[in-house]
Amino acid sequence: MSNPSRPNVGQYLIRRLQDLGVRHVFGVPGDYVLGFYDMLESSPIEVIGTTHEDAAAFAADGYARVNGMGAVCITYCVGGLNICNPIAGAFAEKSPVVVISGAPGVGERFRNPLLHHKVREFTTQREVFERLTVAAVELTDVNLAFGQIDQALDAAVRNNRPVYLELPRDCVTGVPSFEHRTTTTAPASDPQAVTEAIEEAARRINASRRAVMLAGVEIHRSRLQPLLLKLASSTKIPIATTLLGKSVISEMHPSFAGVYAAGLGKDAVCELVEQSDCLVILGAFLTDIDWGFATPSLDPTRCIYASGEQVRIGYHFFHDVTLEDFVAGLSEARLSPPSTGVHQPPFREGPVEWQGDRLQPVTTDRLFERLQHCLTDDTMVVADIGDALFGSMDLCIHRQTEFLSPAYYTSMGFAVPAALGANLARPDLRPLVIVGDGAFQMTGMELSTILRCGLAPVVILLNNEGYGTERLLQEGRFNDIQTWQYHRIPELLGGGRGFEVRTMGELDGALREAAASRDAFSLLNVHLDPNDHSAALERLGRRLGNRVHSNDAKRET
Amino acid sequence: MSNPSRPNVGQYLIRRLQDLGVRHVFGVPGDYVLGFYDMLESSPIEVIGTTHEDAAAFAADGYARVNGMGAVCITYCVGGLNICNPIAGAFAEKSPVVVISGAPGVGERFRNPLLHHKVREFTTQREVFERLTVAAVELTDVNLAFGQIDQALDAAVRNNRPVYLELPRDCVTGVPSFEHRTTTTAPASDPQAVTEAIEEAARRINASRRAVMLAGVEIHRSRLQPLLLKLASSTKIPIATTLLGKSVISEMHPSFAGVYAAGLGKDAVCELVEQSDCLVILGAFLTDIDWGFATPSLDPTRCIYASGEQVRIGYHFFHDVTLEDFVAGLSEARLSPPSTGVHQPPFREGPVEWQGDRLQPVTTDRLFERLQHCLTDDTMVVADIGDALFGSMDLCIHRQTEFLSPAYYTSMGFAVPAALGANLARPDLRPLVIVGDGAFQMTGMELSTILRCGLAPVVILLNNEGYGTERLLQEGRFNDIQTWQYHRIPELLGGGRGFEVRTMGELDGALREAAASRDAFSLLNVHLDPNDHSAALERLGRRLGNRVHSNDAKRET
Repeated sequence: MSNPSRPNVGQYLIRRLQDLGVRHVFGVPGDYVLGFYDMLESSPIEVIGTTHEDAAAFAADGYARVNGMGAVCITYCVGGLNICNPIAGAFAEKSPVVVISGAPGVGERFRNPLLHHKVREFTTQREVFERLTVAAVELTDVNLAFGQIDQALDAAVRNNRPVYLELPRDCVTGVPSFEHRTTTTAPASDPQAVTEAIEEAARRINASRRAVMLAGVEIHRSRLQPLLLKLASSTKIPIATTLLGKSVISEMHPSFAGVYAAGLGKDAVCELVEQSDCLVILGAFLTDIDWGFATPSLDPTRCIYASGEQVRIGYHFFHDVTLEDFVAGLSEARLSPPSTGVHQPPFREGPVEWQGDRLQPVTTDRLFERLQHCLTDDTMVVADIGDALFGSMDLCIHRQTEFLSPAYYTSMGFAVPAALGANLARPDLRPLVIVGDGAFQMTGMELSTILRCGLAPVVILLNNEGYGTERLLQEGRFNDIQTWQYHRIPELLGGGRGFEVRTMGELDGALREAAASRDAFSLLNVHLDPNDHSAALERLGRRLGNRVHSNDAKRET
Repeated sequence: MSNPSRPNVGQYLIRRLQDLGVRHVFGVPGDYVLGFYDMLESSPIEVIGTTHEDAAAFAADGYARVNGMGAVCITYCVGGLNICNPIAGAFAEKSPVVVISGAPGVGERFRNPLLHHKVREFTTQREVFERLTVAAVELTDVNLAFGQIDQALDAAVRNNRPVYLELPRDCVTGVPSFEHRTTTTAPASDPQAVTEAIEEAARRINASRRAVMLAGVEIHRSRLQPLLLKLASSTKIPIATTLLGKSVISEMHPSFAGVYAAGLGKDAVCELVEQSDCLVILGAFLTDIDWGFATPSLDPTRCIYASGEQVRIGYHFFHDVTLEDFVAGLSEARLSPPSTGVHQPPFREGPVEWQGDRLQPVTTDRLFERLQHCLTDDTMVVADIGDALFGSMDLCIHRQTEFLSPAYYTSMGFAVPAALGANLARPDLRPLVIVGDGAFQMTGMELSTILRCGLAPVVILLNNEGYGTERLLQEGRFNDIQTWQYHRIPELLGGGRGFEVRTMGELDGALREAAASRDAFSLLNVHLDPNDHSAALERLGRRLGNRVHSNDAKRET
């Protein structure tokens, strides 16, 4: 079947995934992809089966965010069309996930147009993924396949975004009739454009009185943290991050100024960023959540903006300047902004143990105050959306990029499966997963796979009996959900620890026990008042509320 | 906000859904759709919140299959892109589901291009659903919206397939500036074409010696059962059904000849159908599953084939002849085929109580033999795929269209949420849900919503610790799944009954207790040997197996 000197299509794809550092592939098998699953199982790559395809894709996304590349492998349509949402999220937030889908054999398609799993045309699934990825190809020609694989994987690396590869089951073992040399292309800058851009940026920074850097998630995705740190230590310019970019720099770093999110974040950070006379925005795409759903409040004339898409200073643009080259150039430029002294964010004070009444009910604010105390150098925080995210905003993360959350695309159900992927990519870290009850009902049963893989995250379930964020926007019975006895899930899955938590004393005890037991997951069912919210969500709700009702929304336009 | 004489866009859509018999809408709320949810809640339509959007879409599909029209309402992208698979299944199997998605307000889109939940372009989600529906429109213009709603709903009715309506949140309360008169268009036949087609069909039937009818699911979708029954009683022609069409005629009906599925079904039915000299195929789309994954074995020269897409006799086609008019014409034509006597299918013998050793372990075949005994006039059978479907094939269904299964698209996870929808559409019937453990892990937690709605299905979980169908095709660890203590789910959800079943005696006891308790669901965790299969799956596996390995598949081409 295979050929020692010449790999077949499946073997070549597996080899290239390994080149890119992929050691685990997530998915659910199905008949159109069983041949490739068989190859995966006999390869060094480990196949992680999940309960549902969408969980596999969230896991691959979490894996990619930490590892630099992830992969999900599913069957045709009934599998692939189950991962549209998580892959869309990876696209929106720039996480490079390779989608590998089985498909009917090319040879079968003529004989019987109504093969099972077919929706409309044999091309339908590829057409769907063309909208959700930066490259979507059907590997129907064995002689073209290797080159198509190279090009697609290149696109994933270059754009930090998902790509789609469809493997007809009669092509996966095909061997091309000629030798193939793997080629990869990297985007190149125009050196003169870089020089001019760096010179102007340096001039503006040196002439400024209150220069500030705002770092985004692309700094992590493009592995530019070392350059950012170099820039930080050489210039002492305070560095804030976006919410999606939270922890691209250690929040213990003396230059770290806090998370910027207009209307959500701390006032001091908003002031620092918005009143800067030279704001250097690096690798951030600023969303309505960063603006707190208000009109952007940054004056472009005072901004230097470099991202994966563009480099812009004031109102002019530099083409052919990559983010990498711009940050590298900046880190080597002679920068001597007036030392404003290292910014001391108001929340730098060390975490405190819970001292209050142990019989006090848990509130969102008390919970996060207490969680801050649990963070160690080995903690990776994975937050779902709603208060899981907004409450986490001010947690002080010890290391780089150990905070994961879908802070822009904000898809519920990300956290538990993403923690599965992220933890397999970084087994040296222990995930602290924070998730609302609504999101948990969507994908939380993936604890089943977490248990099976022998992983031991600590899962904090914020149980407010419904969709808390929405209650602030629009009251309605549709915001209430069935209450589960979440702490009994270990009895269903046959492993793990469950805790029911109502008081601060119970919280302390459960967190201590969870910290001590590292053989399996710990799930804390933390009861919260349905009307209790973090301060940030309170603020956000007020801002969002008047946009839900179309009349108001209309008025704004 | 609203206007007594003139409805706004949301109110008009709700009114039209009611016109089409929609009394329940399934979904998960999100901020972009909260305005419409508020309208729904204050309307006569009941909103059924599910744990996950995909379950809402499966429920709407099950509802549509029984009720004639269903609807699912979700938020933008993070909601809508979660239902691509179930909606694709509704498209493939002709179930009319209206997808209603919230979206950012038109007015918001200019101000900030990076609104949360956005993937690529604001049109991305609509572009995806253009591939999965027969009509996909964004209701961005209040003055056009009513007409667009009429056209889309028409398309759903005409094609029995899903449509997609996107409601920007600032348009939902908009009122058009002029009166709108609801218009609906029905496809019309060319009377002369109908006459000629019926005359030729009648000639062939009357000249035949062994005329047989093969009825498909479209007979149900187009509400043609009364005409089919009329045809049956006037002609005494035996009627077989496809697997997807199972129970379009009561399987107690004297003319019912059994389920035809080449290589899967009973030999007697295959012989009857394949050796007929005049096979009248009505409303069936024949898939690779009907052929048992073999080359179609019916000779077109001996076939009369009428479906929603075409009317064909021998090798010639009649255009502008609808399935409705063809079946109506046939039911009125003078048909006098030689009385072959009513066909007695070999499995017509009455069901028997389990008489064997009560300590015998449950096997798939014994289980279905026993389940046959539980079927009553009030039973609706909802089968997931794999042995849940193949084992159910020979269950004798008492009434019309009380058997639901994704027998062509074969998406795992259909049964439990589809039973939720079907049961709300037909509260007078009690669902018997048959589902494998792999499929249950995908969507089975929707029992949460079933409990919340006070429904009481009996769920038979075939627990063979993995993906049984695939084990036959390709051995591998990837076919094994984490074993759950499924019978303990009631403790997690706070209601329902769980039973652990290993022996025939335990099965009898659990089924009796389940039959007696109608206040909530009963879940039977039925342990089966991982290598035990129904006879049909055994046959199917052998046929599929040699198509999984590409070399073999190649050889066939």
